[in-house]
Amino acid sequence: MALGEVALLKQIRARAAQLSRGTAHGGLRLGIGDDCALLRLGAGEVLAMTTDLSISGRHFRLDWQTPESIGHRTLARGLSDLAAMGARPVAAFLSLGLPKELVQNAKGREPWPSKKNWFDRFFNGFFALANAFQTPLAGGDLAESPMAVADVVLVGAVRRGKALLRSGARPGDLLYVTGTLGGAAAGLARLAQLAAMAHSARPGSKRIAPLRIPGKLQSLLAPHLYPQPRIAQGLWLAQHGLASAAIDLSDGLSTDLAHLCEESRVAAEVDAVALPVHSGATLEQALHGGEDYELLFAATPEARVPRSIAGVSVTCIGRIVRPRKDRPALALVTVNGTRPLAPRGWEHFS
Amino acid sequence: MALGEVALLKQIRARAAQLSRGTAHGGLRLGIGDDCALLRLGAGEVLAMTTDLSISGRHFRLDWQTPESIGHRTLARGLSDLAAMGARPVAAFLSLGLPKELVQNAKGREPWPSKKNWFDRFFNGFFALANAFQTPLAGGDLAESPMAVADVVLVGAVRRGKALLRSGARPGDLLYVTGTLGGAAAGLARLAQLAAMAHSARPGSKRIAPLRIPGKLQSLLAPHLYPQPRIAQGLWLAQHGLASAAIDLSDGLSTDLAHLCEESRVAAEVDAVALPVHSGATLEQALHGGEDYELLFAATPEARVPRSIAGVSVTCIGRIVRPRKDRPALALVTVNGTRPLAPRGWEHFS
Repeated sequence: MALGEVALLKQIRARAAQLSRGTAHGGLRLGIGDDCALLRLGAGEVLAMTTDLSISGRHFRLDWQTPESIGHRTLARGLSDLAAMGARPVAAFLSLGLPKELVQNAKGREPWPSKKNWFDRFFNGFFALANAFQTPLAGGDLAESPMAVADVVLVGAVRRGKALLRSGARPGDLLYVTGTLGGAAAGLARLAQLAAMAHSARPGSKRIAPLRIPGKLQSLLAPHLYPQPRIAQGLWLAQHGLASAAIDLSDGLSTDLAHLCEESRVAAEVDAVALPVHSGATLEQALHGGEDYELLFAATPEARVPRSIAGVSVTCIGRIVRPRKDRPALALVTVNGTRPLAPRGWEHFS
Repeated sequence: MALGEVALLKQIRARAAQLSRGTAHGGLRLGIGDDCALLRLGAGEVLAMTTDLSISGRHFRLDWQTPESIGHRTLARGLSDLAAMGARPVAAFLSLGLPKELVQNAKGREPWPSKKNWFDRFFNGFFALANAFQTPLAGGDLAESPMAVADVVLVGAVRRGKALLRSGARPGDLLYVTGTLGGAAAGLARLAQLAAMAHSARPGSKRIAPLRIPGKLQSLLAPHLYPQPRIAQGLWLAQHGLASAAIDLSDGLSTDLAHLCEESRVAAEVDAVALPVHSGATLEQALHGGEDYELLFAATPEARVPRSIAGVSVTCIGRIVRPRKDRPALALVTVNGTRPLAPRGWEHFS
């Protein structure tokens, strides 16, 4: 039996309420069920807000990624933006447009969440991450749609004057990244190989079921399928006032560093040899591959930046320099000399 | 020449900044350009938040409505949710997925906004309404998509304890609506007639250009094409503490009244003869047609509800009664007696 919108919303609402009760849910005063959700901030806090649109065939693939991974990644994109501001998560909102067949298997009588259909499994992935970061689902919208789309909205709170902006980097500052780079791009490349192999084994099949991923590949693909937003690291940086500027690496180092430099009106040099390339990834993937969701930040040379924050390594990868008209904004310093580093991340409509 | 994502975002950002400067933009501290927007509330205020997903072919039609109307309606849906909470608008966010052809005509060199292409005209409609309600666009997302989707997020502020909830109606309360009902449904029906005529004149044509609407029909279609969110009326109700419960009429009176009754655990009777049916609309359209975006609210019999609020009429249409197992939650009282009023609004996946 297929469930209608009202029944589906009831399921989500029950589960969201469970999560709200089970965790410290901070500022959420009224969740799903009214015209708006109501949230309250602490004194001296400002609100950080972001939206991220994920579209089937553009940001995710129903035939490559499991529903759990798509649910996880949808939320991770938003949480990562909060991390890049140094904000603590307060609540998430989710607008979901889905083809009927992804919902149709949802059976009203089974204990929910079941492990059986796309809709339930998507929310298993979404709520697992929401739970880990104590982020209650406070509202959203649900609609039938010819293709799958998910827009996630994240609300966070940050102490007044403590937010990590893109615009504060100054010449002389050093550049740091958390974790390793290129792992998500390397994982995506492997997933594409698997898909091509599966396709050549069954030519012409239009599979909507996600690929089966052999157990030994799971950890190799984890940076792509289950990226970890760096909330704790962003909070630490904001609390200690250590970063002059910060951004999350969603489009790739070359593109996101260009954004940071543009907002700060500075230029930058990256040391190729210093880059913490993820095991199994290439330098190109570390420089231009997106979706690692690590933090990139700048700090003065005097700042005492630790080697790791909340269990994640921190690596100095270059420096901020004065912008000059006779040289490109970004440069890559290698053993063979210095060359321009052009942003090569994803751009829609280009 | 087609513009890429970066250039399009720059255009939107410039225009949003213009609006922020030109109006009192309340709590927005940092708009488009960083990982998150930053907002600040006044002391004693709580945050009201809502998201509304609009999908081509479901919530709007590229071949029926003008781009200006689609931009207006996208924002109006969210503003109306704020109105139903008694909140003042603080900021809007917009996630937009568009097919390339809707953006492709955007010419970089023309003064923007031009009157020439879909993308610019959509934002003409969006910003005109945003301007009227002093609601700056604070962020969002932009992506290429096989079909057009728009998710709008509205942030509002409301005095602590003053928000209009769905859950406060009590037996004995009277029911009121602002404005008139059924106008949007009547307008939509006329638009469908026009489209059928245009189609039979040019059978087989797959037009993406919107219908041309004769001048004398414009005002008849206005309730559908340009619905007015009742922000001032919601603010007035919240300030005066007059409403025990409130909801906006987005899905239709029968459906939205059912929501209000469910959240308040009450039942209701509607007087057919009292309904303020829009000129040219039928009783059925007034009862079940959606998208009027008027406010429906309950108030005690002692409350001194004025005949109009901020220039919009207010009409008593029925009463809240005790729920009983032997009768339906909603009833319609007519000169021929009382009959059940079943919710007949739109439900996705049903």
